Amino acid sequence: MESQTTTARRGPKPRPHTRGNLIQAGLRMLHEAGYAATGIKEIVDAADVPKGSFYNHFESKEAFGKEVVDFYFGQGLVELRALFENHDMPPLDRLRTYFDQRIRGYQATGYARGCLLGNLSLEVADHSVPIRDSLATHFRTWSRLFEVCIAEAQKTGAIGNRLPASMLAQFVLNSWEGALLRMRVDRSDAPLKEFVDVMFSSLLV
Amino acid sequence: MESQTTTARRGPKPRPHTRGNLIQAGLRMLHEAGYAATGIKEIVDAADVPKGSFYNHFESKEAFGKEVVDFYFGQGLVELRALFENHDMPPLDRLRTYFDQRIRGYQATGYARGCLLGNLSLEVADHSVPIRDSLATHFRTWSRLFEVCIAEAQKTGAIGNRLPASMLAQFVLNSWEGALLRMRVDRSDAPLKEFVDVMFSSLLV
Repeated sequence: MESQTTTARRGPKPRPHTRGNLIQAGLRMLHEAGYAATGIKEIVDAADVPKGSFYNHFESKEAFGKEVVDFYFGQGLVELRALFENHDMPPLDRLRTYFDQRIRGYQATGYARGCLLGNLSLEVADHSVPIRDSLATHFRTWSRLFEVCIAEAQKTGAIGNRLPASMLAQFVLNSWEGALLRMRVDRSDAPLKEFVDVMFSSLLV
Repeated sequence: MESQTTTARRGPKPRPHTRGNLIQAGLRMLHEAGYAATGIKEIVDAADVPKGSFYNHFESKEAFGKEVVDFYFGQGLVELRALFENHDMPPLDRLRTYFDQRIRGYQATGYARGCLLGNLSLEVADHSVPIRDSLATHFRTWSRLFEVCIAEAQKTGAIGNRLPASMLAQFVLNSWEGALLRMRVDRSDAPLKEFVDVMFSSLLV
């Protein structure tokens, strides 16, 4: 009964694929065009679902944006964990491999789009508390993986720098986001390569 | 005659203050809300000028955006030059003073808005060649000021790091943009203070 009442109030029962299709389409569009430039109508058109179905799945564009951010980071986190929790590889090699892999990824896509977390940090963080909170949580999770790695490398002596691992990790992550920002403007991998060169010759030593 | 013909074709002669008012209003709005979220109608309303006058002064929103970027960086450059060309101060002190001053500025404004160059790098650089070219030029000018300072400090021995000054300067600038990005998400000066701590204890040493 309860479920019938809900269905009657909200229209047709949401189909599970619809939700996923909307998130996939929204991710592509938010990443390519940005948050303000992407309208809900364009998202439903791209996902090929009826216009009314958006609000069966999401309360608002903001709630949708937050879910897209969570989905995007969730995808990245699978790869991040696979690499950073691979204890067969020395900790500093894991970190280096991570950036080398990401550089190859950006080379393959022509330096466009960059990191959705970074993009929305500058475009949306001032205007949406839920999206900002999600971004902050994901950045913390991400830098925590760097931190564990850096602390391990400090322990083995691979990194002699005695600044706290948490501080180095935050710095590495923020600087990486800055290098990605500059990559977008220069349409070049030079900022990413310089990031790696400086990090591994001057900071994580 | 030529000027009269032009006036007749384009409507009333542009008033010099109108152009400046539009740029001032546009700067405030692009900085606060972003590029896509700011419409031309809102800009002319905020500048309190007749709607038709926008196109007397600017060919397009894109041309306007480029001019706003140039105006913003031009303002910042005056302060940058005054500090970086002050040879009474040792080069490393100039760099340190710059970041300390900027941190105080961001503290005073509650960590919102950030750097317009960084914001538009992520929101617009993929979609507008003229704006991207402007951003790239300004980043080069900005990092060149850091570079001269770093090279001077390497010469005096204040910086022992022997990586090329140009590479260090680009890295410092990009990392600063990354720290500003994280400031927006965390609504805190911690990323900026950590940037300064790491830079001046591990990299520019």
